[in-house]
Amino acid sequence: MMEYEVKIRVGSLLPLRTRLASLGIRPAKNLTEKDTYFNSPTRDFGRTDEALRIRTTDEGASFTYKGPKIGIAGVKAREELIVSVDPKETMEEILLRLGFTRTAAVEKTRETYRVEGTYIALDEVKGLGSFVEIEAPPGLGEKEAIALIGRVREELGVEGEETTLSYLEMILAKR
Amino acid sequence: MMEYEVKIRVGSLLPLRTRLASLGIRPAKNLTEKDTYFNSPTRDFGRTDEALRIRTTDEGASFTYKGPKIGIAGVKAREELIVSVDPKETMEEILLRLGFTRTAAVEKTRETYRVEGTYIALDEVKGLGSFVEIEAPPGLGEKEAIALIGRVREELGVEGEETTLSYLEMILAKR
Repeated sequence: MMEYEVKIRVGSLLPLRTRLASLGIRPAKNLTEKDTYFNSPTRDFGRTDEALRIRTTDEGASFTYKGPKIGIAGVKAREELIVSVDPKETMEEILLRLGFTRTAAVEKTRETYRVEGTYIALDEVKGLGSFVEIEAPPGLGEKEAIALIGRVREELGVEGEETTLSYLEMILAKR
Repeated sequence: MMEYEVKIRVGSLLPLRTRLASLGIRPAKNLTEKDTYFNSPTRDFGRTDEALRIRTTDEGASFTYKGPKIGIAGVKAREELIVSVDPKETMEEILLRLGFTRTAAVEKTRETYRVEGTYIALDEVKGLGSFVEIEAPPGLGEKEAIALIGRVREELGVEGEETTLSYLEMILAKR
């Protein structure tokens, strides 16, 4: 499944939160997400632009593979494969046995909204700041996904600098 | 977690099934298990005696890593790490993306019983025949595990040839 999204660095999440409330849109979820990223014994995911992650939230744990990013006019597209796993500690142990190594941890609080089919995430990322992500629903083609993301962004008036960097890359770059 | 078990090749499962019924012990479960085994891109699990498996039953799917076998007087001991995964097709896709390769499939019907804390499995393995496995409950030390397995085997009168080979190894050896 391809994932299309735009990520915008914002000074504060407050203006968008206020705008959503004024439109009568309430958060669908409010979660703390703790991510552990792994690197492969056969290739450096930093160079191949892949990612392997175990994510824990109050709802459970997931294991995700992300393919290389394809940048299209500020929108980030990449393949994403997700499975739910339980217990996550054992999944982590298996990865270590298979030669994978832990590279970094990313922790954030994420408030999600649904707007016109898109997923809006208001993220506070530990050590990095505030970000807004607008993600197209799965199954959309590239053109429709980009158009929809642009329309929703304009409607919500999200101002700020776009980035195609992942939180993992930002954290590794700060080191 | 260490797993201690003895595996016995039998001509038929019928005598043991009758013996268990006469003792008033009923099967706890009766499942069809479909296993897919994978090999690593960094080392040959056939040589290192490790195993990586996705198992599907009617109850769901699991992902298992098994460490090298330690043979102790016909009892097979090895480390086993298991997580439940969902959906299993995506787990398989992730493994392929990470460079793992499918090696073989093992399919069997397994009837399980609990006898004095041990797990007894009556297996009909496609292409291989009938086997009885007696596994010690987790948490037991080596000595207690071996003694318990021997006692239960005697009590149930399971006759046949012991093997420390896994079904995977038997299937690969037949090729």
